[in-house]
Amino acid sequence: MTDSRGNDFQDKIYKLEACCGAARAGVITTAHGPILTPVFMPVGTQATVKTLTPADLESMDVEIVLANTYHLFLRPGHELVRRAGGLQEFMGWHRPVLTDSGGYQVFSLLDLSKITEEGVRFQSHLDGSYHMFTPESVMEVQAALGADIIMAFDECVPYPAEEKYVQLAAERTVRWAQRCRSHLAALEPERRPSWPQYLFGIVQGGMFEHIRRWSARRTEELDLPGYAVGGLSVGEPKEMMYGMLEHVLEYLPAGKPRYLMGVGYPEDLVAAVGRGVDMFDCVVPTRLGRNGSVFTAAGRVSVKNAAYKDDFRPLDETCDCYVCRNFTRAYIRHLINAGEILGIRLSSHHNLHFMVGLMRAMRRAIVDGTFDQWSREFYNKYDPGSR
Amino acid sequence: MTDSRGNDFQDKIYKLEACCGAARAGVITTAHGPILTPVFMPVGTQATVKTLTPADLESMDVEIVLANTYHLFLRPGHELVRRAGGLQEFMGWHRPVLTDSGGYQVFSLLDLSKITEEGVRFQSHLDGSYHMFTPESVMEVQAALGADIIMAFDECVPYPAEEKYVQLAAERTVRWAQRCRSHLAALEPERRPSWPQYLFGIVQGGMFEHIRRWSARRTEELDLPGYAVGGLSVGEPKEMMYGMLEHVLEYLPAGKPRYLMGVGYPEDLVAAVGRGVDMFDCVVPTRLGRNGSVFTAAGRVSVKNAAYKDDFRPLDETCDCYVCRNFTRAYIRHLINAGEILGIRLSSHHNLHFMVGLMRAMRRAIVDGTFDQWSREFYNKYDPGSR
Repeated sequence: MTDSRGNDFQDKIYKLEACCGAARAGVITTAHGPILTPVFMPVGTQATVKTLTPADLESMDVEIVLANTYHLFLRPGHELVRRAGGLQEFMGWHRPVLTDSGGYQVFSLLDLSKITEEGVRFQSHLDGSYHMFTPESVMEVQAALGADIIMAFDECVPYPAEEKYVQLAAERTVRWAQRCRSHLAALEPERRPSWPQYLFGIVQGGMFEHIRRWSARRTEELDLPGYAVGGLSVGEPKEMMYGMLEHVLEYLPAGKPRYLMGVGYPEDLVAAVGRGVDMFDCVVPTRLGRNGSVFTAAGRVSVKNAAYKDDFRPLDETCDCYVCRNFTRAYIRHLINAGEILGIRLSSHHNLHFMVGLMRAMRRAIVDGTFDQWSREFYNKYDPGSR
Repeated sequence: MTDSRGNDFQDKIYKLEACCGAARAGVITTAHGPILTPVFMPVGTQATVKTLTPADLESMDVEIVLANTYHLFLRPGHELVRRAGGLQEFMGWHRPVLTDSGGYQVFSLLDLSKITEEGVRFQSHLDGSYHMFTPESVMEVQAALGADIIMAFDECVPYPAEEKYVQLAAERTVRWAQRCRSHLAALEPERRPSWPQYLFGIVQGGMFEHIRRWSARRTEELDLPGYAVGGLSVGEPKEMMYGMLEHVLEYLPAGKPRYLMGVGYPEDLVAAVGRGVDMFDCVVPTRLGRNGSVFTAAGRVSVKNAAYKDDFRPLDETCDCYVCRNFTRAYIRHLINAGEILGIRLSSHHNLHFMVGLMRAMRRAIVDGTFDQWSREFYNKYDPGSR
């Protein structure tokens, strides 16, 4: 199975560098550069990480961003992005990109969607127009977008959900992954980018261990370059999420990257890295930033609080990001209260810098063989606060 | 008349370097650095040039920003800014700042304002609370904000306005300027910043030449470090504005800076520099940027137009700003249509870079003695389009 240039797009893209307990440090290699893992991927839904430029992201050592297939399919359209030279050129971001499959979005529009074995018919949230996503069409859209890592089309079930439905959805997700794999392999060279695209499979199975196990085994059999765990952090208790995650990870191969989709908060990232996850994405740093909620080494702080009115300290006294080197809580509080865009830009910047720094600190601790100790110290200092 | 450190705050702050016809190139010296003139001052109403950081502004060679006394008085309050170390420290912007007097804003709230000889009583647009600005209080607020250049409290009349009212307002503006000057000179050292603040007077007089002449003469007699022309570009025809401007400039001393308030568009800046103006401020580059309207060497372009949907050229092919070096019209159009903040950030950045570049080009032409030719070429290439 080769790409348009004859490269084997199922090449081993992951190199494991160090383990510490279950935690792993590694490197993923792509045509747009390496990704040091564990890694947090900022979300750039509409081909932009909200408020930030590629130069901002590079300055904080972001190595890969995620973009959303559903949104870009609707606007500006994947064919436009193809003509621009792919998402990397379109966004002016010359490092790796991952696109999701659109599955999560069309299942979130459940009232507006109709699921069949063929695929999902859905209505645009923008103009109500009707569209169909199938495993095949989603591969074509992602080929046009040109991300370095692309995701199989999956059916994400809500929580709670009945066993029978979860089983059917997991089975369909495996069949869809097979169709994705075949269609991508057969895609004409002119419909693909000139660089390899690595297809990741997604394990589903809701909160049922035996379905998760079945899904992990069957997905792993597809021999894809990497695997994701989907359908977690959808409202279930934390303990249940970690239990399911541990269960799934047992069945995924050590030589390939493992991606926990849609997670999460700093405390979640530390817990999941400790269980062997390599990749994460979440809107939390930018979404919280827009509300003036910022991460610090001691936990989350809502900079809008009156307590910070004349607090001339940086957001986080231990942070060396551009924001913390140049601005005070009092100033950022003023900007956010005054509705100024710069306020949410600075909060978003700081929060992403925090996440990148957190991942780098974990990676160092794994390489040094001190992850357990590092993790205990993190939880001692960091107060996750209320959600 | 000296400041708290014994400096004469009416020192000659302006050095004329070159003239070309009526156009002038010079340097204004402040404690926070020099300002090369002619200069365009981006507007940072609420202590932020909308969407941009000080680093962005420095990267495009902005040398001074304007902030609004009225807005900062109401939020976050001038005493908070004083405690932060002045506007420069508060904003993280370590170059010069100019604050206006609040006069323009309280007169724009005409229905909510009551004018007496003492000053103006007005209601906050934020919460309806009542406040009073007097020449004395406005000096105290501006002393707390700590700008390098501060403006006398003036009464700006609308267009059209009756001669009798314009005359009364111009006379009151001169009396208020005298009170500003006296109050500032007598202000206790602990209520002033440690650096000099230069008070500029404002010439008013509506569209009546004889009142403008009277106002210019009387304001000039106050022997202030610089003079502004207010009450222009308030809806009058362009020819009338330039006529009034030329008339006023005859009565202002050549050895001090001349500031045309609230102007303007690129074509206005070229016309006014040609008549001898040194300083400008206007919200146009950032306001237009927020609407996706951008300046180019050939004129204004609305990047939202369908024509730019798959235009992969930069906003301005002759521009070397960060935005034009990295992004296409198609991408910025997508961002603005999708409601993404990055779109307005990039448009604002480009527009301000354009204005700074325009002023620098004019300055070079003045120094080289080729301003007339430069100006003709500008108008030949630049289509101002519709407003």
